[in-house]
Order: sequence, then structure tokens, then C-alpha cells
Amino acid sequence: MNKFDVTILGCGCAVPTNDHLPSAQVVDVRGKLFLVDCAEGTQLQLRRNRIPFHNISAVFISHLHGDHCYGLMGLLATFSLLDRTKPFHVYAHPDLERILKPQLDYYCRDLSYEIHFHAIDTSAENLIYEDRSVEIRTLPLCHSVPCCGFLFTEKQGLRHIRRDMIDFYGIPHYDINSIKEGADWVTPEGEVVANERLTTPPDPVRSYAYCSDTAYDESLAMRIKGTTLLYHEATYCEDLLPKAQKYKHSTAAQAAKIAQLAGVGRLLIGHYSKCYTSDDVFLKEAQGIFPETILAKENMRIEV
Amino acid sequence: MNKFDVTILGCGCAVPTNDHLPSAQVVDVRGKLFLVDCAEGTQLQLRRNRIPFHNISAVFISHLHGDHCYGLMGLLATFSLLDRTKPFHVYAHPDLERILKPQLDYYCRDLSYEIHFHAIDTSAENLIYEDRSVEIRTLPLCHSVPCCGFLFTEKQGLRHIRRDMIDFYGIPHYDINSIKEGADWVTPEGEVVANERLTTPPDPVRSYAYCSDTAYDESLAMRIKGTTLLYHEATYCEDLLPKAQKYKHSTAAQAAKIAQLAGVGRLLIGHYSKCYTSDDVFLKEAQGIFPETILAKENMRIEV
Repeated sequence: MNKFDVTILGCGCAVPTNDHLPSAQVVDVRGKLFLVDCAEGTQLQLRRNRIPFHNISAVFISHLHGDHCYGLMGLLATFSLLDRTKPFHVYAHPDLERILKPQLDYYCRDLSYEIHFHAIDTSAENLIYEDRSVEIRTLPLCHSVPCCGFLFTEKQGLRHIRRDMIDFYGIPHYDINSIKEGADWVTPEGEVVANERLTTPPDPVRSYAYCSDTAYDESLAMRIKGTTLLYHEATYCEDLLPKAQKYKHSTAAQAAKIAQLAGVGRLLIGHYSKCYTSDDVFLKEAQGIFPETILAKENMRIEV
Repeated sequence: MNKFDVTILGCGCAVPTNDHLPSAQVVDVRGKLFLVDCAEGTQLQLRRNRIPFHNISAVFISHLHGDHCYGLMGLLATFSLLDRTKPFHVYAHPDLERILKPQLDYYCRDLSYEIHFHAIDTSAENLIYEDRSVEIRTLPLCHSVPCCGFLFTEKQGLRHIRRDMIDFYGIPHYDINSIKEGADWVTPEGEVVANERLTTPPDPVRSYAYCSDTAYDESLAMRIKGTTLLYHEATYCEDLLPKAQKYKHSTAAQAAKIAQLAGVGRLLIGHYSKCYTSDDVFLKEAQGIFPETILAKENMRIEV
């Protein structure tokens, strides 16, 4: 199975507590690291989790509330202090570039690397990034400012070689790649050996949806149908539903309903309000509706 | 003795490590809290040290390098999320206001309190703050950007009442305050009782000097003569003296020499470079010159 995991750097709400840090995650797809949101403390959390700064290629910012982006300036400056040369990509609402540029000009006159800003349209479902391993799409969310989630979808991997059959037919090394890609093989005698005899199917394609911050929105469920792992904010429990509605956040029950509607594999909840002294109430409420719910915690690494 | 202590929130250098956070301290003078520098993570450290956000009345920023001020935006936003109403004062180079204002306008449209920016001249020794407990002065420092330290000097306290003498003369309650302030007392019979018979001297005046970041500068020693406690940066040890000179930082030995020249009570060192794996080398080097040296550590509280 190719590497595809998520490390939680922070899963708290806007006001920091002793239990949680504000939002930031690292998504690792086959060794390539993508940062999702970048709250204050992100670079400290990267250190704590021994995540190599140089392997982070881009950051995806869901929206411009401070608890999702105040850590970016410090991280960009540290990249330069560490003599980064590889360009770094920032995917965010276009206002972020306008806000960050004067700070970069002031604090980091001689950056050791280039920053490429990519303005995203948070209101549309767009493919915003693609490489040979993964596609990343925006997921429009319903919040008090323009906001979107991100859907990471693995690219279909290669078929798995059946070592015994390769040996049986004495297939040379240089034909292996095309067989992995699905080609049949022709023996020196002209006999066609079907690919299905030589390989087993590729691993199923996995996907990870990051959805924070958002009010309850059933249209989201349609967009993330069958996602392997869904991170959905659960700022409140049902006892504070009016607060959730007022501030355009979700309750744990609502996150679970979205997971159920979308038929996802597992649900990961976070963005806990400081109004609650224990996180277990979120888990209990969500699992009542969607049993495959997991509580996000700082420094947790979870396989997609 | 009146309260006068320093809590170290961060005493590392620009690049965060697993051992240290960047610069921030809280100075507590008789229950009034002053923040000195405000690196990324300051608000998280305030929480960890259970320091009440509402009691912080001002921040003093030594210079506009990110490792001394990136945490300010988050802190100002959190004050508002916590419904602060008391004004907050920011003492810093005037550029800080210019850099922060657009961010405040964008992220915190409806601040619950007022922020007063006080532009300081880092090149002069000025009294920039005064209340009935403390005076705060700038200390020009020698760094790669305009930079100053801060000298906190307690105001002379009141004389201590000798309870036995008050009882002996039957002095009424309403005369105590003026006696504490140094007045003699006149008996109903017209006899003058000298204040010295009724009181003992006030506590000695204490002072705390925060000096970071700075190259070795003997003129600083003259300005902080006899200071009770000196925090002086010690980014490197003597083995990296050329680096210290290049980046306008100090070695532990240089910090100790300043402490010695100034005849301070105790020296607290910090701002350790990530080039060293242990802090003990800093302590050893400094104590060789100035034995009364203490290593700063995160979450340490030290009486002045």
C-alpha cells in the first residue's frame, strides 16, 4: 500500500487552550507532504512530530480566519532561515497574498526560495493541484467568510506483479513496467499471456476530505460520496446547536450525519470549542449516528 | 517584599527547536503584567503558565525580527475573542503599527477593546512608561535592525511600620499612611516623635534589565549599573565568536563580561542558537566569568 496518511498538528478552535492547538494538518501522499491550514504554532508542531520542513511542498488554506493561517508567516521565514531553495506553493483565497506580501517584504527581504501564490475560488469545486500521485480539489463550504475544504484523491496505482507467474514464463525485467501498467505479454513463441494471469488488481483508490470550518450542509455529502476518510469540524455538540448555527459551525451530530449521508469509510472530528472540558462528549454524540468516528488529537497520525 | 518576577515564555533563537521557543517573557510588578517580546507561541505559553490574559496591560517589543513579534497578531485577536474591554498598549518601533494595522483591519474588524500604539525611539534611553509601582526605560542595543532593551525599575516603596511603636504611642489608624510615607508624628501633648522611631527603611529598590538582541557593547554596562537581575542574550559560545560578530549577537562570555562590568546582582542568559545541542556549554562559559549566572528555561519564574 502506498503511503497516504494525515498528521494532526492542531485540532482546536480559535481560542487556544491547554488541550488543543488551532488548525493545522500534514497530509503525506507517497512521501510528498502537503500542509492543510497553518495556525500559530504549526512550525513548532512540525518539529515535535519530526516532520522535515524541506519535504513540505505546499500549503492549502481553507479560509482567512487567524486560527487557520497565523502560523504561515513564521513558517515561511523559517524556511528561509533553513536555506530552503525549493519553491513553496500557497493555495488560498487571493486576499492572503495581499495580507502577507507587506509582511514578507518587511521581515524577509532576502528569501532563499520562491513563494508561488495560487488564488483559489472557494465557491467552486475545482481541481487545483495534480501530480502523478494525487489530485486535490476544492470543496465549497458554508462559513462566515469564503471557505473551502480540500479533497485529496490518490491516483490509481499500478497492478501488482505475480512473482510466481513472472518466474514461470521467464519474463525479462524490462517488460515488467508495461505489465504493471496492464499490458499482456507475448512469449517468444507468439503465445499471448493475458495480463490478468500475470498481475493482481491495483490497490483501491483512497481519498481524504478535509472540511473545516463549515455549517451543516447536505450538498457537501454529495461531493464527498464514498470518501475513505473524512475530517469534518465538530465545534459544538447538539446542546449548543443555536451557537453552531449562529457562527456557521457544525455539531458532532451534524458531522456524523454528513459522514453517514456520504457513506464515507471513517469520520475524524475536530475543531473543538473551548466551551467543553472533555472531548468525549463529541465522540459519544457522533458515534451515536456514525460508529466509525475517531476523535482527532494533536500529534496523531492516521492512515487514510 | 512586593511582587516583582519574570516568567520565561521562550528563550530560544530564531529557528524553533524541540528544546526552546522564541523570545517572550512576562514581567510581573506588584500584580501588573507586562509582556516583553511576543514570539509565535506566546499565547499558548501564557495558557500553559496559567497567566491571566486580562491582567496583561502592555507589550514591549525590542525589535522587529519575527522571533520577537510574530505572536502578537494572534494574541491581539484572542484578547478580542475573550471579550477584553481594557485598552492594550503596544510599545514598539513605529514600523510595527504600519505592519500590524492592515492585518488587524482584515482579521479583527470588530475588536472588543482599543489598542494604543506607542512608537519608541530605540536609539535613546527614554522613560517610556511609568505608574505608581514601576518605571520602564529603553536601553539602546546594537543589532542588525533598530533594537532596544527595557529597564524595569521599581519605585521606592513605603517605609515599614514598627507595630510595637505604633501601639506604644497609641497612634490612630488614619495617621499610619503619612508615617509610612516618612512623616514624623506629634503626640496630643505636642511631643514630636521622629519617623525613624516609628518605621524601618523601605525595601531596597530592585531593577530588571532585558537586553536582547545585541552585539557586545560596553556602553550598555554603564546604563545598567547595579541592576538586580539582567537578562542578556547569549546566542553563541566563544567558539562561534565570528558568527556572533557577523550577526550582531553576543557570546555567553560576552554576556558575562557585561554583567561583571555593570556589577549586576544576577545574570540570566538565553536566546540560545540551535547550533548547540546542550545549554550547559553556555552556563559553563558564562559562570567562568560571572558566577551568578542562571540559564533561562521555558516556564521558569524568577524573582527579581
